[in-house]
Amino acid sequence: MDVIQAVRWSDDGPGVRIVDQRELPTREVYRDLRTVDEVYDAILTLAVRGAPAIGIAGAMGMALALDGTERDLATVMLRLAEAHGRIRSARPTAVNLGWAVDRVLNAALRDPSRRAMIAEASAILDEDRAMCRAIGEHGATLIPDGARVLTHCNTGALATGGIGTALAGVYVAAEQGRRVQVYADETRPLLQGSRLTAWELERAGIPVTVLVDGAAASLMAEGEVDLCIVGADRIARNGDVANKIGTYQLAIAAKHHGIPFYVAAPTSTFDPLTANGGQILIEQRNADEVRHGFGAPTAPVGVDVYNPAFDVTPASLITAIVSDRGVHHPPYHFAERGGAS
Amino acid sequence: MDVIQAVRWSDDGPGVRIVDQRELPTREVYRDLRTVDEVYDAILTLAVRGAPAIGIAGAMGMALALDGTERDLATVMLRLAEAHGRIRSARPTAVNLGWAVDRVLNAALRDPSRRAMIAEASAILDEDRAMCRAIGEHGATLIPDGARVLTHCNTGALATGGIGTALAGVYVAAEQGRRVQVYADETRPLLQGSRLTAWELERAGIPVTVLVDGAAASLMAEGEVDLCIVGADRIARNGDVANKIGTYQLAIAAKHHGIPFYVAAPTSTFDPLTANGGQILIEQRNADEVRHGFGAPTAPVGVDVYNPAFDVTPASLITAIVSDRGVHHPPYHFAERGGAS
Repeated sequence: MDVIQAVRWSDDGPGVRIVDQRELPTREVYRDLRTVDEVYDAILTLAVRGAPAIGIAGAMGMALALDGTERDLATVMLRLAEAHGRIRSARPTAVNLGWAVDRVLNAALRDPSRRAMIAEASAILDEDRAMCRAIGEHGATLIPDGARVLTHCNTGALATGGIGTALAGVYVAAEQGRRVQVYADETRPLLQGSRLTAWELERAGIPVTVLVDGAAASLMAEGEVDLCIVGADRIARNGDVANKIGTYQLAIAAKHHGIPFYVAAPTSTFDPLTANGGQILIEQRNADEVRHGFGAPTAPVGVDVYNPAFDVTPASLITAIVSDRGVHHPPYHFAERGGAS
Repeated sequence: MDVIQAVRWSDDGPGVRIVDQRELPTREVYRDLRTVDEVYDAILTLAVRGAPAIGIAGAMGMALALDGTERDLATVMLRLAEAHGRIRSARPTAVNLGWAVDRVLNAALRDPSRRAMIAEASAILDEDRAMCRAIGEHGATLIPDGARVLTHCNTGALATGGIGTALAGVYVAAEQGRRVQVYADETRPLLQGSRLTAWELERAGIPVTVLVDGAAASLMAEGEVDLCIVGADRIARNGDVANKIGTYQLAIAAKHHGIPFYVAAPTSTFDPLTANGGQILIEQRNADEVRHGFGAPTAPVGVDVYNPAFDVTPASLITAIVSDRGVHHPPYHFAERGGAS
């Protein structure tokens, strides 16, 4: 199965090779990022996106900070510090990006060589691939032959260094020879479902059907959905899940129809310091994502907009949570943060 | 309160004056349609939309078929037959359009004069205004001072000859001095909520906030919604309601949060011949509405799409149904079709 690889090393000399997600779903364009500035731009402009994928791209970008011409340790340290600050600033609220570039900087402090930094960034990439694979193996156990799976947003290969998180189970089930059909919510406002999930599944040969977010319950009522799988941005100790806006509404609809609702995410998203979803601050995003979609005005100029980045799905609506460590059933109690390793 | 009038007679000689809904929300442009062909084009291209509004525009367009130069009854009849066929063909599945142009044709058969046709079309417009007003008076009784009302699609003045159906209650409550705030689902795929509902409410001075369809449940969970009001395309004898896709999902979310969910529609949408929602055929619309939104590709070319025009909300999720005849409570039993009169 040909699953897209969103981030990897360039084939021809130092560089980070990405598929440019700004061009999707229209064109499959690869870019080799050769400098820290190019990595910064790619993260800033969402050419690469998805928490794990931007962490990996940032880590690999750190290794581009040194070109072997540095004449003394002070120059090396200056370049590393500049690269670290610059890459972090591309998405200052992305926890995973900060964690990944910190990790490469720490490796460089122990061994200030490009070789050591490449090794550390490669380790981050490899660990992410293994994490995706593990989530996929566990997730696939929930997906029977012939399953029709509804998902939201993009939690696939395009968001990670490997085969994704929520979609990983779909890929593994298909690899194991089971027939799987995916329904992809388009996921307004940024359409990660219709632009990205549909694209990567189609490319991998997995049947996919796109629907507007408001149509999911209707599809369920028609008996067309066997299970739902979504990702998570953060999972509280009690199993409440923060994820892309629209997830909660989907979970309510699934419950109403008696359809299993699964969340799949790395243990690094477990947040034992957050007791429950009520403690999660919900960030409001730019109103123009709703007022001005796709290059055209889609609402009156300046109209008030409610545009939360994510919502909180209470644990009571979640049938099971899949992580790289296994399938977790309620009652949930995530007392330990997993970390990306 | 300055509520937009979507369709009326032109000020200066024979013509149908519409606000061109293709230009909304960017520009408020009025067009005077002077010929049957111009009315046909306006209906075909959605310059005028909403079942009652296109019925009225069609009826008024019929009156433009005669210009007083007809020398004999055969010419009159030929022109009327041509106009009738042409206008109907602009939206062949629009029941209300067919009903309205039939009615003007029947009036012309009794009295083949432009005056008689204008009188009949004016009667249709006046009846629609009265119907909207009656729905509004009944609907307003459900809207307390300070209410935060969530709605879906556009069921306001832009869809009718008067002050709308579901939004009519909001307008009347505001007229009566109560503070009302509206949350408008953007309503993918065609964005009638963000483009039209937000525009007409803002123009009338009623506070409005737009949200993506997937965010409604999150808003409810935050305690920001006191009640929901939506329209209806068809209401079965048992109170099951067919309405714009996304309505059913909203009703489930409202039920989950214990929020009243009201449907407001003219008695002409009551369909006593349909026992329940299971008998309503759900039409699939063009996939490109989802694949190619707003001039840009929003999904892979040719990807499968599930794009039903509407969904069915079972009566069990509906707190009350408001019509021009009053507020109907469950158990519903609509044995009599209302008709637009």
